[in-house]
Amino acid sequence: MSEKMITATAEAAAGLIKDGMTVAMSGWAMAGYPKAVPEELVCRRKGGESLAVNLVTGANVPWLDEKLGAEGIISRRAPMIASRTLAAQANKGTMSYVEQQMNKMPKLLRSGKFGKIDVAVVEALGFNENGELIPTSSIGMTSHLLDAADSIIVEINKAQPELLRELHDIHIPAAPPKTQPIPMVSTAQRIGQTGIAVDKSKIRFIVETDIPERMGAQPKGTEVTARIASHLFNFLQQEYKGWKGKLPPVQLGFGSIADSIADAFQHSAFHDLQFYCGGVTEPVMELLASGRASAVSAGGLGMSERVEQILAETPKLSERFVLRNGDLTNNAEVIGRLGVIALNTGIEMDIYGNVNSSHIAGSRVVNGIGGGAGFAQSAGLSVMMIQSTAKGGAISGIVPMVSHLDISEHDIDIVITENGLADLRGLDDVERADVIIGNCASDAYKPQLAAYLVKARENCGGHHPQLPDDAFTWHRRLKEEGTMLEKDI
Amino acid sequence: MSEKMITATAEAAAGLIKDGMTVAMSGWAMAGYPKAVPEELVCRRKGGESLAVNLVTGANVPWLDEKLGAEGIISRRAPMIASRTLAAQANKGTMSYVEQQMNKMPKLLRSGKFGKIDVAVVEALGFNENGELIPTSSIGMTSHLLDAADSIIVEINKAQPELLRELHDIHIPAAPPKTQPIPMVSTAQRIGQTGIAVDKSKIRFIVETDIPERMGAQPKGTEVTARIASHLFNFLQQEYKGWKGKLPPVQLGFGSIADSIADAFQHSAFHDLQFYCGGVTEPVMELLASGRASAVSAGGLGMSERVEQILAETPKLSERFVLRNGDLTNNAEVIGRLGVIALNTGIEMDIYGNVNSSHIAGSRVVNGIGGGAGFAQSAGLSVMMIQSTAKGGAISGIVPMVSHLDISEHDIDIVITENGLADLRGLDDVERADVIIGNCASDAYKPQLAAYLVKARENCGGHHPQLPDDAFTWHRRLKEEGTMLEKDI
Repeated sequence: MSEKMITATAEAAAGLIKDGMTVAMSGWAMAGYPKAVPEELVCRRKGGESLAVNLVTGANVPWLDEKLGAEGIISRRAPMIASRTLAAQANKGTMSYVEQQMNKMPKLLRSGKFGKIDVAVVEALGFNENGELIPTSSIGMTSHLLDAADSIIVEINKAQPELLRELHDIHIPAAPPKTQPIPMVSTAQRIGQTGIAVDKSKIRFIVETDIPERMGAQPKGTEVTARIASHLFNFLQQEYKGWKGKLPPVQLGFGSIADSIADAFQHSAFHDLQFYCGGVTEPVMELLASGRASAVSAGGLGMSERVEQILAETPKLSERFVLRNGDLTNNAEVIGRLGVIALNTGIEMDIYGNVNSSHIAGSRVVNGIGGGAGFAQSAGLSVMMIQSTAKGGAISGIVPMVSHLDISEHDIDIVITENGLADLRGLDDVERADVIIGNCASDAYKPQLAAYLVKARENCGGHHPQLPDDAFTWHRRLKEEGTMLEKDI
Repeated sequence: MSEKMITATAEAAAGLIKDGMTVAMSGWAMAGYPKAVPEELVCRRKGGESLAVNLVTGANVPWLDEKLGAEGIISRRAPMIASRTLAAQANKGTMSYVEQQMNKMPKLLRSGKFGKIDVAVVEALGFNENGELIPTSSIGMTSHLLDAADSIIVEINKAQPELLRELHDIHIPAAPPKTQPIPMVSTAQRIGQTGIAVDKSKIRFIVETDIPERMGAQPKGTEVTARIASHLFNFLQQEYKGWKGKLPPVQLGFGSIADSIADAFQHSAFHDLQFYCGGVTEPVMELLASGRASAVSAGGLGMSERVEQILAETPKLSERFVLRNGDLTNNAEVIGRLGVIALNTGIEMDIYGNVNSSHIAGSRVVNGIGGGAGFAQSAGLSVMMIQSTAKGGAISGIVPMVSHLDISEHDIDIVITENGLADLRGLDDVERADVIIGNCASDAYKPQLAAYLVKARENCGGHHPQLPDDAFTWHRRLKEEGTMLEKDI
């Protein structure tokens, strides 16, 4: 190791970080982020120091966003925000948000377009015998962040389970023109290394910490999301009836719909389940614990006491659970090859199947596009699940035209709401509208949606009939009258 | 070969095709389509027979669309239309258009969702010693179409150059869960077979033809498109300055912008050019002829007398030119691995970089989404080129909000108009709007666009400020006043 690399307090290490710098931090899918150095930055800011940085991570790290964002320490953020505080700042225009898809991060980081990275702060379990850095509960883009950074601070967190050491599989595809095929054909296959090569001369400080990583409470399934899961399972049984109770690998996110689906998998007849996810949390890990799932690949592992218990108690864990770097978790080549069933959710969907997954009323960001669009584009089967109404019926999940478009109708195969399922494959645009309205919309909004479609076909026509003025009346009515529902229909 | 397989007249063979059937025909990127059987269908229709079919091809085949569409023989069409006649029918609602992305075709055909294919009609040079079918100027989805069809008619066209025999490279990835890595790491690498395996028992008729395949006249570059090409080349020289005059493989389509780019490549300092395209026509083939290009991979070859001459005169042709099936030409795995420079065009783009490439005023289809979005999603560098105005200035190519969205802002790296270039990488949404308006919009529309952005930021705010009512005033003004231009600004 470099003579420059010294064990230091978080305070001393954080001293490297100055106002106006571009700082990269480890973290992906809510896991594996540094903790002590960010706390020091908060202390300095609270002490009156002028301190704001351009923060780059691999993907969503809500703890960093909330912790640093609440103090106004983040002036610019890429590639995803995952906090109400930071979203509010992005929407107010006081923080600059460079929203990116997860699968674009390797090429964007290599392009240098996020700016020179002054300091990278990464969490690790330590180093292996080759001097490679051993990450913790995520790997994410850490390899690229370390490559791009001038200086590096490593937080070695003794509170992260040592068991994680045997779970990492790190494979960094070379940049074109030297890129080779990714030699991976199954979910839990190991194709890479256990550590991340790092230029030791750039490591300026090692900070030893002992801070357990704990996810906040996650949303539970509801009666409505259970109905969505039920429609999904009826469909999967039909669609994969030749698969003898197995399924292609499933991509599942977080939230109440995901919770209901995990619960349904726990009680379904499917067996030897595989999950190929950006991140996994307790519900998917419970499927591993119960033996329902036989292979899980994840970019990040949402830590909790129960997850640590599952890690400790699962036999042959490293054969069944793989933590991968972000180059692979969201990789189109791998997702397409495995024929992943992508289970995504959105904010609103239009009658043709276009999805808004990021911006309320077209302008105000919630989180960001994340990895969903990439999974939908490359999946073997792309499923979009959405509740047919929100806010007690004031909002229809199905609208004439989405106010912002993240996932194209051409990247959606199946639409599910609590009311039913629409299989869009092989349908023309008006047929799509008919099945989405007929099978999926809420009864309260069906007449309004059907009337819109009739009017659009008559007044405008075309292959994809749309009347933007009429369509956006829905969002205007919500803003002005508090509901999308027409009074006189 | 099967006892059922007999050489027959086109009239006899076409007799297999009845009103209401689903018929698949070969063809991809304007090339390799059957000719005699479609002519027979036209004759029958003109003779008063009630005859309309659901037509499925691999991709765009304008000759079939025009020939059959003009007689109303196509009642339903997938996955792409490439004819004004058929677009008009789709927009009138008299023909059902199932618009799909090219890269989704293998999985969609395997799903059976286009309906049972009654008859497949494919053009071939003949059969090889293994009894495999040898395609002509495209391969497309023919393998999948033959697999899915109940009966097959093969048109053996003696007018197609025998030289094509040595150009095909056919590799059909297995469906999940048996998919393997595609072992391809360079543009002209051969990884497959020279013929398509076919169940001979399904071949009902062989029709011998002698009909030269000739593309219609293609649009030439203009002074405006030459300026777009010029901005592109200045950028490429900077972006790839470490590549010693080489570039990653380039995806180039058809049209006047593509013509100007091919012309610029002919006169630039770049050498050993590679092209990885859905289809190529004379301009790219001229680059092969001049020695500027050393490797061309295409899904279809637009035939002309000049192209036939280039095929005949190019030494070591099969080492430099490969005709691939559609599973590979538009494959995310391969496009990403090669780091393809995707050069796409669109109808309109919004101030944030979202692109409408298919529907005028949001409703009326021109052709369809085709392969562009797939290339943009997976490319090493995604470039969108658009003229800043159309119809003598009545239409701005840059609008506040696209009326239809095919390619997301997140899949676009670089925007070019004749006025300049905007590099969107690493920018937040308002910064994107600033550079797109500032560098790319026409002077006539800049004040209007800038005023919109100011108003959207003030009245609505948010991370992605949009005022749909104001935004769609642009399209309404065009319809009502004949121009998007405001009178009083």
